[in-house]
Amino acid sequence: MTATVRVGLDIGASKMHGVAATADGAVLAEVLAATPTGGDDVVTAAAEVVAGLRSQVDGAIDDVVGVGVPGLVDAAHGAVKHAVNLGVDDWFPIADRLGERTGMRVVVDNDVNAAALGAAQVTGHQDLVYLSLGTGLAAASILDGRLRRGVRHAAGEIGHVPVDPRGRPCQCGQVGCLETAASGSAVAEAWPVSGVPPAQALFDAAEAGDPRAVEVRDRFAARVADAVRLVSLTVDPEYVVLGGGVAQVGERLRVAVAGALVVQAATSPFLSSLDLAGRVLLLPGGVPVAALGAALLAGADAHHPFG
Amino acid sequence: MTATVRVGLDIGASKMHGVAATADGAVLAEVLAATPTGGDDVVTAAAEVVAGLRSQVDGAIDDVVGVGVPGLVDAAHGAVKHAVNLGVDDWFPIADRLGERTGMRVVVDNDVNAAALGAAQVTGHQDLVYLSLGTGLAAASILDGRLRRGVRHAAGEIGHVPVDPRGRPCQCGQVGCLETAASGSAVAEAWPVSGVPPAQALFDAAEAGDPRAVEVRDRFAARVADAVRLVSLTVDPEYVVLGGGVAQVGERLRVAVAGALVVQAATSPFLSSLDLAGRVLLLPGGVPVAALGAALLAGADAHHPFG
Repeated sequence: MTATVRVGLDIGASKMHGVAATADGAVLAEVLAATPTGGDDVVTAAAEVVAGLRSQVDGAIDDVVGVGVPGLVDAAHGAVKHAVNLGVDDWFPIADRLGERTGMRVVVDNDVNAAALGAAQVTGHQDLVYLSLGTGLAAASILDGRLRRGVRHAAGEIGHVPVDPRGRPCQCGQVGCLETAASGSAVAEAWPVSGVPPAQALFDAAEAGDPRAVEVRDRFAARVADAVRLVSLTVDPEYVVLGGGVAQVGERLRVAVAGALVVQAATSPFLSSLDLAGRVLLLPGGVPVAALGAALLAGADAHHPFG
Repeated sequence: MTATVRVGLDIGASKMHGVAATADGAVLAEVLAATPTGGDDVVTAAAEVVAGLRSQVDGAIDDVVGVGVPGLVDAAHGAVKHAVNLGVDDWFPIADRLGERTGMRVVVDNDVNAAALGAAQVTGHQDLVYLSLGTGLAAASILDGRLRRGVRHAAGEIGHVPVDPRGRPCQCGQVGCLETAASGSAVAEAWPVSGVPPAQALFDAAEAGDPRAVEVRDRFAARVADAVRLVSLTVDPEYVVLGGGVAQVGERLRVAVAGALVVQAATSPFLSSLDLAGRVLLLPGGVPVAALGAALLAGADAHHPFG
């Protein structure tokens, strides 16, 4: 490992999170900021986060910034599409714009891809699928040390696999997508609260013995288990890592999902032999995994960060 | 390319198919034989196929045989499990046994993995998912030139992803698995005939204007389209190649599945942007793709045939 310091930015729908980190993942500085709407304002705010990180770190910083953003990302061209929550245009050239503003080279990738890279670094595992349980549901795969982006930047869009012909309409235009049941939005709709994160409130109520909360929690956990099963029967990773906003409820999420996987496998010797329950991991709390992964992007070729 | 000649064997439930081929896929000799039941008899029959190939080919043959077999395969140990149709025991050491019998080194892999390698060679595409529509439904992925086997040899077992909670019981013990609707068995049950392959009879009847056949065909094509969508939203390959016994109905299968994909995408701009219909390929008829792929196994390291 060199002493090189890298900058990574996770630009989310509501806030952006910047870190300066060593190549082996030690966080030297963190900056949080609100995410404005619209491409120009996003770039301005991001440049301020980068400046804030530079001012906090003594010594040399790599002349490159890694950025994770929601939406379809064309990593080769540093452009982002369908980033509806950021209010940016189709194929907004965020890498070029932020590069002009900071004077640094900018490498961009999808935020879930960045988080998967961060998860691989934090856990030390080089073969995993990262499941992002945020507003929606998406996955990213590190297979045998290599991030799988897909030919049309659509690898990991498992939230839009329909799993119930009689299910609910999805905003993508299909019916019964996995995301309609296994996502933060699904929890918020099934367990509406204000003031606290819905998943937190749901898991608290279930733990306090509310039978309806237990039912809603277990149904949600079963749908997340469906997502774990889907990626396992497709790419069969060593681990499936639970992340995203919903994962902030902590270890009890992993316990609920692992429990649901055991129930699913009870009728199937084939599934049972795969021990999916034993392969589900939760990241340690408070680790800025997407920003750390973005910093990894900064330290590597955009196409094969581990290649 | 060298002039090396490689031997590949595709051992199926009812017949085994052997080829001797050059490294660039030219078939120099083919031998077909019935597959007996039970490990010892399978090995004996396979050794006879190898001897038959050797006798047909002038000049040097590589001292290694590649073998594709159904079931879970531990490629590193040359053992096969759950190959129910072959009547072999769990973790039957087929590589060692066939090696003793032939005096050649034997490399074993799952038959769908072998077929995917063959499909990559035949099509010239190094990023694809091969969908095997045989008795069951399974897939194999060549991602950026590398075969993805999975950590527990279970990558591509998409036939056992449940996609309908009110669907039919699957032999794996779950309910509503994709395989219960998108497989040769599903066609045989929906369109029972004798004397001709059910898929052939179904597509013939639909083309002749039988409205019930049209309905059954289109419903089947829609479920195969589900499989294409599932793998596309997970690993996003450049192409999805239709293979297996059902694919012997030819180009009209590709047309039906592509049509179903267009219908699915009609309500979803997101899906539509991925052009899944344009990424579905059918292999040219009569190419022994699994045996050819097995010959490729023989010419490369078992772990990274293209790596």
